[in-house]
Amino acid sequence: MFKRMIAAGVASCAVSLTGAAQEPADLSLEIERTVQFLIEQAGNDDIGLAFVEDLTTEVGQRLAGSESEARARAWSATELTELGFDEVRVEPFEIPFWSRKSESVSVISPSPQPLVATALGGSTATPKGGVTGKVVRFESLAELRAAPISKVDGKIVFIDETMIKTMDGSGYGMAVRKRSQCAEAASSKGALACLIRSVGTQPHRMPHTGIMARDGAEGAGPVAAISGPDADQLTRLLERGSVSVSVDIQTEIKTNAPSGNVIAELRGTDLSDEIVLIGCHLDSWDLGTGALDDGAGCGIVVGAAMLIADLPERPRRTIRVVLYGAEEVGLFGATAYAREHGDDLDKHILAAESDFGAGPIWRFQTRFGEAALPYARTIQNLLMPLGVTPDDNRAFGGPDIGILARAGVPVVTPGQNGMDYFDYHHTPDDTFDKIDPEEFRQNVAVYAAFTYIAAETGWDFRKQPEIEAPGTE
Amino acid sequence: MFKRMIAAGVASCAVSLTGAAQEPADLSLEIERTVQFLIEQAGNDDIGLAFVEDLTTEVGQRLAGSESEARARAWSATELTELGFDEVRVEPFEIPFWSRKSESVSVISPSPQPLVATALGGSTATPKGGVTGKVVRFESLAELRAAPISKVDGKIVFIDETMIKTMDGSGYGMAVRKRSQCAEAASSKGALACLIRSVGTQPHRMPHTGIMARDGAEGAGPVAAISGPDADQLTRLLERGSVSVSVDIQTEIKTNAPSGNVIAELRGTDLSDEIVLIGCHLDSWDLGTGALDDGAGCGIVVGAAMLIADLPERPRRTIRVVLYGAEEVGLFGATAYAREHGDDLDKHILAAESDFGAGPIWRFQTRFGEAALPYARTIQNLLMPLGVTPDDNRAFGGPDIGILARAGVPVVTPGQNGMDYFDYHHTPDDTFDKIDPEEFRQNVAVYAAFTYIAAETGWDFRKQPEIEAPGTE
Repeated sequence: MFKRMIAAGVASCAVSLTGAAQEPADLSLEIERTVQFLIEQAGNDDIGLAFVEDLTTEVGQRLAGSESEARARAWSATELTELGFDEVRVEPFEIPFWSRKSESVSVISPSPQPLVATALGGSTATPKGGVTGKVVRFESLAELRAAPISKVDGKIVFIDETMIKTMDGSGYGMAVRKRSQCAEAASSKGALACLIRSVGTQPHRMPHTGIMARDGAEGAGPVAAISGPDADQLTRLLERGSVSVSVDIQTEIKTNAPSGNVIAELRGTDLSDEIVLIGCHLDSWDLGTGALDDGAGCGIVVGAAMLIADLPERPRRTIRVVLYGAEEVGLFGATAYAREHGDDLDKHILAAESDFGAGPIWRFQTRFGEAALPYARTIQNLLMPLGVTPDDNRAFGGPDIGILARAGVPVVTPGQNGMDYFDYHHTPDDTFDKIDPEEFRQNVAVYAAFTYIAAETGWDFRKQPEIEAPGTE
Repeated sequence: MFKRMIAAGVASCAVSLTGAAQEPADLSLEIERTVQFLIEQAGNDDIGLAFVEDLTTEVGQRLAGSESEARARAWSATELTELGFDEVRVEPFEIPFWSRKSESVSVISPSPQPLVATALGGSTATPKGGVTGKVVRFESLAELRAAPISKVDGKIVFIDETMIKTMDGSGYGMAVRKRSQCAEAASSKGALACLIRSVGTQPHRMPHTGIMARDGAEGAGPVAAISGPDADQLTRLLERGSVSVSVDIQTEIKTNAPSGNVIAELRGTDLSDEIVLIGCHLDSWDLGTGALDDGAGCGIVVGAAMLIADLPERPRRTIRVVLYGAEEVGLFGATAYAREHGDDLDKHILAAESDFGAGPIWRFQTRFGEAALPYARTIQNLLMPLGVTPDDNRAFGGPDIGILARAGVPVVTPGQNGMDYFDYHHTPDDTFDKIDPEEFRQNVAVYAAFTYIAAETGWDFRKQPEIEAPGTE
């Protein structure tokens, strides 16, 4: 039965792949040669890599709404201007601000010992001196949801759910639910605080932070993530009997803090009002220096745009590089961009976003109108020599451009190999040394290639099939 | 030339290996069978592994002189008594005590950012609020030593020397010199504080602590280790210009704090006053839970002794398991043991120590009298099926039994593969999950085998050749 299903799937897939809609569109020899040249040049990229090195060194961490994120905007605007972009500007907006002031989680009994922990973004502060209570452990968020109040009331909840390591990061969606919901689920049953096993995939004593809720500066209760080895330790202690833990989280919050999107453009020629948007986010979590998340993404899109800027002529459409602000704490930059540019979204021809580290791109998804699929195939064919597999037309886009995709802007998702991404994601270990320059440059090559094609060809990626009689097969 | 030297070396080695002194001594079939049985049983060891799991879980870190080291002594004494050792006792002594209270190292300008750092054991405290100064970087301790006072005075010294990763840990000796000498070398030239690149070999943002001086609770100046990625970051910043850093280290010191050696014995039969000593150290650094350094060593020697304890009969000599106290901060347990037992060192037939993690043993060195080398060969032959290479007669012993070796007690060094040891050594990451149970059990097998042979055979490992006419060849 299983074999027959597979066979059917393959057959259907084969039909789809060989169907007329999947034939590549023609590309002029000149454009194709330029794409090959860009790919070649990307192999020597210094600008993109230097951008992320300099950003993470000269600015460091860039917590949304902080003084350091402001420095990052100023630094980027100066840098992008010096690089020679035609126009550079900052589009400011305000966000609710949350920052950790101090945090400590310790076993009080039976054997006093500190646990490596980090408050989650948006965690409520505890009273000064912290809260102390017996730990009640759950294997999953679902188990906590199902528990009676009597089991949780007055306790410190510990959700010990692990995250599955996958190439496409699909383990994250499931694992992150305990991060966003634990405080609310625990508090609603009278818990003093919540601890989660870090949403991450490495065996080191590194805690992974991240936002706990997307609706404001402060969430539903005190919540911290402990490292994997500390989760193991707490579980071993609980196997031996009752365990009391103290959780002390002190925070700083502000209602309105400055953030902003940094925008740099290469002005197009005869189609300059049409926009090809490539983005990343400039803010980072505060524990590392935001090299993989998402300094790398910014370096990749800046590097790709600069390769195109160095061509003898600007392409026809405008290439807009967007360094979004305040992504980590609730996609505030994405919302602000959509608000600011809502009236000309139809002029956004294509959007893409790099926000998954610096691992090599292994597949290329699109979300195009059905009649534009030949364009997808043309781009995918050109990327195959870089080790990129053509993929489906169900691209999500990315966190920051998702709002554009939902508004009908065609998007592509160059899918990176994220097998190791959640080893570093939101930890102190997200630093520049974790970027492999060769893998980074492959990303620059891919972005330069499809961005140039989109900007130079004049193709309409929204294109739908000619009207046919409905219901025919 | 190089080839000829190699060839000569091999030839000389071959002579030595096949020389009369290297013929194995005879072992009774019964002892050999028991050794094989012990090796087989070690493959299922639960006691040794449980010892380190329980110690690191139920006690946690065990900083020398602290309340937690005291708990570790009480815990061990109870545990070893329950396991059925014939005699268990604590031999107390006092040590100077140093503990961190708080520590922070931050870049102040050009771009404020925290560095992941840990004070070294024995570091002087800074004034409250810390010291701030410009950083002066040196590639090595030697470069700092050679620098003029004018280059160092009023600055914060940064030694960026890296450590070489080797199987036998030989990279440590060189690298550790900057740890022990930086404060003194820097302070003597008027520096405000010293920072070193952590003495370690991993790429993560983990600082490695360790003692800076062995002569007391407090050293010659404030000194901290920063993680490898932070050392890279500081170097990148310095490449861009002047960098100011603030170092704030607050400590607690006591002149006399309690420590002690925990001793457990399997009483021998007809040679009960002769001692085969196998040791480890019970104290650890405070950042991790001291699983590899040196909970594993304690688990290995306890596990090995318990396999022998479970035999139908006790061996002829007494097996003494010594869990040394206060090793990390200056080998105080070793000194106390030598003081306490100085009068009967001649009754110490053999000593060995496990203090290099839980990696598999790959070679077996001895330090025996020349005429006892056949015993070495016998033991080595029995260990070869475990993947252990026979090695030379120049065993160092180990940190805690070095003092016995220097006093003439025969020692063996079962050399572990320490390629990854300095990835975890003295970091928060030294936790139980880093121990591979199979590799751990191979260690238990080796220790059980040679300990049993030494205890049961009655062999004299000090044995020297019969008197011959001197000068003959």
